[in-house]
Amino acid sequence: MRRSSDPIPTLAIPDVFSPNEPQLVGVSGGRDSIALLHWLHARGFEKLTAVHLDHRLRDESGEDAEFVRKFAEAIGVECITGTADVAALAKKERLSLETAARRARHEFFARIAIERACPRLFLAHHADDQVETFLHNLLRGAGPSGLCGMSAVSTLGRSSEDTSAATDAADFRPRSQGTGATNFSAALLIARPLLATWREEIDAYVAHHALPFREDESNADPRLTRNRMRHAAIPALTAALGRDVRAALLRTTELLRAEDEFLSAQPELRGAPDALPVPLLRSLPLALQRRLIHLWLARHAVANYGFAEVESVRSLLESRGAKVNLPGDLCARRREKCIFIAKQ
Amino acid sequence: MRRSSDPIPTLAIPDVFSPNEPQLVGVSGGRDSIALLHWLHARGFEKLTAVHLDHRLRDESGEDAEFVRKFAEAIGVECITGTADVAALAKKERLSLETAARRARHEFFARIAIERACPRLFLAHHADDQVETFLHNLLRGAGPSGLCGMSAVSTLGRSSEDTSAATDAADFRPRSQGTGATNFSAALLIARPLLATWREEIDAYVAHHALPFREDESNADPRLTRNRMRHAAIPALTAALGRDVRAALLRTTELLRAEDEFLSAQPELRGAPDALPVPLLRSLPLALQRRLIHLWLARHAVANYGFAEVESVRSLLESRGAKVNLPGDLCARRREKCIFIAKQ
Repeated sequence: MRRSSDPIPTLAIPDVFSPNEPQLVGVSGGRDSIALLHWLHARGFEKLTAVHLDHRLRDESGEDAEFVRKFAEAIGVECITGTADVAALAKKERLSLETAARRARHEFFARIAIERACPRLFLAHHADDQVETFLHNLLRGAGPSGLCGMSAVSTLGRSSEDTSAATDAADFRPRSQGTGATNFSAALLIARPLLATWREEIDAYVAHHALPFREDESNADPRLTRNRMRHAAIPALTAALGRDVRAALLRTTELLRAEDEFLSAQPELRGAPDALPVPLLRSLPLALQRRLIHLWLARHAVANYGFAEVESVRSLLESRGAKVNLPGDLCARRREKCIFIAKQ
Repeated sequence: MRRSSDPIPTLAIPDVFSPNEPQLVGVSGGRDSIALLHWLHARGFEKLTAVHLDHRLRDESGEDAEFVRKFAEAIGVECITGTADVAALAKKERLSLETAARRARHEFFARIAIERACPRLFLAHHADDQVETFLHNLLRGAGPSGLCGMSAVSTLGRSSEDTSAATDAADFRPRSQGTGATNFSAALLIARPLLATWREEIDAYVAHHALPFREDESNADPRLTRNRMRHAAIPALTAALGRDVRAALLRTTELLRAEDEFLSAQPELRGAPDALPVPLLRSLPLALQRRLIHLWLARHAVANYGFAEVESVRSLLESRGAKVNLPGDLCARRREKCIFIAKQ
């Protein structure tokens, strides 16, 4: 009997993630991260450490941690687990459970990276994750920088990273952890080698190698938006178009990411000023006006701003001496040739 | 009894569309174009000419033309109607009925514009049209320039206009119509004053003024992709997100259009060369590499190219002396420091 070929023969691994160097791998215990851990291990990554955070959101979450520990042990990979009370974090910080879980995970990963002096982390996000995130961001109007999705390689804690992206790379702002800690975590590199691999291919890999995994019951929970994107929105779009829409959406994230990188790198956007000079802003093309205002609102930590707020600040270009309200009892005021942030 | 206020009190009209100058209005006889014609007339546009093309796709299409003529006459507006055998055009040019109808309409509008020396045309596309077109282009992977949707003001026949947009402004390439004709149609300006107005607002306007209109039965035909976008895709996305998604999608088209304009205006993209110089292409950021290749393929009239073709031409940057196949028995070859188009 001919042995069928490996469903995931190759993956692009960034050069800095050398097989001989220590690397962390985020492992939930689900198919995707188990497949990734197995794949990396089988390709000669010698110094892997599986990292798993127990979110304590489900009764059996302790069993997930135990499962990951045993799986790692079976293939001879070190494993570090931790726990976080995500429900309490969500309540305290007024976050959704999904956002709180992501933040807790990132803080855990960053802590381990610091303790181990190991600034490289593999995550198992795949092409369907990318497409579902893109669609969700599109529908909630996250704007261009939210439409780029996750990068195959990114840096956790990069201050310019767009929090609206709602990806695992986003909304991570490392708390200060003593001198040097923030600098270190700012250089925590994340690689997502599965980002061009579809869920079916991962399923086939798991089946091919008869890998054990834990089923995450929350993946079927229709209360979670990401599940409605996956189980309702994508199939409805596929039906409406008459063919699978995922490849086109994935390609769009690739195109928009490259365009976003180009736009973000424009010299006019370097170092958002404390106050916005009206003549400078006026001289910019519309796209850069919006992006500069966006950066400026982020710099001033204006919460939950979006297209409407950017456009209302932009309207000040036409009206001298006016002000527009912003979230959080703030406002943007124009006096002569400057726009600045003030209390309402 | 207090009279309720007009559902469409104001619309942004470009300055060049002065009420005292002659203007064409494309009128199908449906709610949208009837509302637009009525609105413009009520706002003092004195020299309107309603233009209507009978596509001969339905038995009763002659009645539509008759209806438009009578409506225009009733409000004292001149009306010009024409007919085109859209089914024959579609067959001959191997186009979808929708595309053939759009092309026939544009040729008709351009011809009237020339005959009347009236280079300004109003069209009744509204915000729902914009959102539905955007979604369709997104799902079929039209790429960034296909995601910008229609402009509130555009020029018919602009050679740089992206045919992939599949809008009424797109895929219009005026045939040569004698000396000067092409130049003239290249300056045919289109305004879409309803582009920020939702279908419900137009319905309310029509009801408020008790306007007669013709129901276009094809609007309910699920065989047409645009109808599936409207009746299936958008409602499914709204259900999946838990709130109306149309405003976010409309806003995204606005953002992406401004970014597209900025990117298209980059000096590196001026005048796509006959052959692509490899060192120049290599020196560009990824986003501009893709856009330059895109323009270059369009310049060489490569048919039906998309992301895959752009990426395969781009792969030649890494492989000297190679070739990649393109649609229509063409290929892109690299010799030394140049990439050029050849027969396969």
